Amino acid sequence: MAVLASTPKSDGFFMPAETDWHAGCWILWPERPDNWRLGAKPAQRVVAQIAQIISQFEPVTVCVNGDQYENARHTLAPNIRVIELSSNEAFIRDTGPSFIINGNKEMRGIDWTFNGYGGLAEGLYFPWDKDNLIAQKICQLLYLDNYQLREFVLEGCSFCVDGNGTMVVTEECLLSEGRNPKISQSAVETTLTEYLGVEKVIWLKRGLYMDEGKGHIDNLFSFIHPGEAMLSWTDDQSNPQYEIVREALDILQHTPDAKNRTIRTHKMPLPDPLIITKEEAEGINYSMHTVPRCAGDRMTASYLNCYLPNGALIYPQFNDKNDKYAHEVFSAIFPHRKIIGIYAREIFLNGGGIHSMVLQQPSLR
Amino acid sequence: MAVLASTPKSDGFFMPAETDWHAGCWILWPERPDNWRLGAKPAQRVVAQIAQIISQFEPVTVCVNGDQYENARHTLAPNIRVIELSSNEAFIRDTGPSFIINGNKEMRGIDWTFNGYGGLAEGLYFPWDKDNLIAQKICQLLYLDNYQLREFVLEGCSFCVDGNGTMVVTEECLLSEGRNPKISQSAVETTLTEYLGVEKVIWLKRGLYMDEGKGHIDNLFSFIHPGEAMLSWTDDQSNPQYEIVREALDILQHTPDAKNRTIRTHKMPLPDPLIITKEEAEGINYSMHTVPRCAGDRMTASYLNCYLPNGALIYPQFNDKNDKYAHEVFSAIFPHRKIIGIYAREIFLNGGGIHSMVLQQPSLR
Repeated sequence: MAVLASTPKSDGFFMPAETDWHAGCWILWPERPDNWRLGAKPAQRVVAQIAQIISQFEPVTVCVNGDQYENARHTLAPNIRVIELSSNEAFIRDTGPSFIINGNKEMRGIDWTFNGYGGLAEGLYFPWDKDNLIAQKICQLLYLDNYQLREFVLEGCSFCVDGNGTMVVTEECLLSEGRNPKISQSAVETTLTEYLGVEKVIWLKRGLYMDEGKGHIDNLFSFIHPGEAMLSWTDDQSNPQYEIVREALDILQHTPDAKNRTIRTHKMPLPDPLIITKEEAEGINYSMHTVPRCAGDRMTASYLNCYLPNGALIYPQFNDKNDKYAHEVFSAIFPHRKIIGIYAREIFLNGGGIHSMVLQQPSLR
Repeated sequence: MAVLASTPKSDGFFMPAETDWHAGCWILWPERPDNWRLGAKPAQRVVAQIAQIISQFEPVTVCVNGDQYENARHTLAPNIRVIELSSNEAFIRDTGPSFIINGNKEMRGIDWTFNGYGGLAEGLYFPWDKDNLIAQKICQLLYLDNYQLREFVLEGCSFCVDGNGTMVVTEECLLSEGRNPKISQSAVETTLTEYLGVEKVIWLKRGLYMDEGKGHIDNLFSFIHPGEAMLSWTDDQSNPQYEIVREALDILQHTPDAKNRTIRTHKMPLPDPLIITKEEAEGINYSMHTVPRCAGDRMTASYLNCYLPNGALIYPQFNDKNDKYAHEVFSAIFPHRKIIGIYAREIFLNGGGIHSMVLQQPSLR
């Protein structure tokens, strides 16, 4: 459990692809009533359902604040492990460690700085002190040696690696005023390559419109395997996403990956715009330290905000005409995975998603 | 992680002796300022020292409330695992699970009810809600199937097993008004034998004078191996312990164990009476929900409140004339263990001790 002064790349470590085999996954229990409506009860039901489905494919650990321990343990299926771990919010992919491995089947963790999605400049809530300890605590739980970056802000939803030398990020997020404003793009890239063990960083310009992560890549883009990926897509010119996804595709088609391949890109339809209702907004506590969610606000929704447990893919449904088409696209892309849709509006209501709420732990076998 | 409806004995499980080989141990971080003086800082220093010494012999995990996580992680040696786990008090032997094993090298946990050392009738603090969840949480952390007793109060310091069919308890504690007042002695004995997998319960009358656990066995008696034990002792007739230890010896000499042996008993001297000073008492926060600790109060102190990590024995020293003699007795009894004394007045000040604050986890090898 040492904190290491070297870098992962110099030590021979890299981050494997999410599609590789997992030892299991980690989930955080949603709780804060100023961000989840009706005391988070509807979101908790969805999270319990997601956890139960995933647990049919790989072991699941749900982390929960002490005051919700009994409730989480009671609500979740008995085969799901529940452990106490404090958080400010429930997006463990952003706050948990990045798990990295080497060729000797060893694992370490990276503990980035987390600042509530943009700190005092642009953050979504205050404070974020508990969230910023989550990565360290999970490394301790797993006896992992780890790297700590006390001067570099990064969220797990803001980058995507293929496990084969390439990663994709957005300028909008990684170069935002709230993340690392004093660090140049090339210095950011050096940190990414040294810590995630990649050779090539592909910079898209923007994430999806109104993405609360300010350009989190995981609503926009996802690797299928090295050299092949999915991209959120719309042909509706009135949709603000129209320009964004075309801009991304253009960059991907003109930027070779680490192995000098052009990434082959499959288009994944976006659902129609989703709007927060008056009833939904009224279920949320007011707090001056949390970004308000108002009736009429547009939610970020993407089928790519899905999770891939061993042998399966769990994707969100929105009662949208494209729910069924997304299922077909996933089925064609992943013929050997069981494709499972789950109605997940409740966890997209506050800017989250299935991918944001589940963090895979690589298998060492 | 199932909660089982059977009993350990019927499933072939029993509790091994503390002197058997450990996979490691669990410690809770002392914190509450209404029980530990000076914001618990002196006690934390002693606990950090104990953890560091033990970690030379077996892996140590220290559990800590969220608000003290950073402080504990900073204070403890890097090879010690620190995990978040809420508690009301720091005596993990009383609140953690009883680990039981079977012949197939499987482990399970027992989650007794904990009620703050006697509930509303006789308890030492209120509330005890977090403490009563500790056993369950540790079973979850270790993926252990477990037995839950929601109607039976028991603390780990109140019984001692030899791993060979015999356990020793005191009537003063187990039959106290605050524990299981509506359960007969024979019914208590049935629960003990069914859950801890023993054949014979030896009932001593009383624990040490002024023992806050109201007769916790671990200040008075400890097994060395099956058929052989240590008993706290004094030849000072003016000491209230004088009668107590003789009464205990008399029972031991006239009560055969599960294998029909008379337990061979070694006498361990007690330190002279230890009194809380005015300065010490003034360092403790007042609270109407915690038993007060006043200048002039007598502390319970016993060399037997020690811990036996693999290959060693860590015992408390009190700047008493018997510190050195205790060392010699331990050395003679355990010639193959490294005997290490540590000045531990700070953690006996509030009724605790080294044994109370460390819980061994059996090895399955």
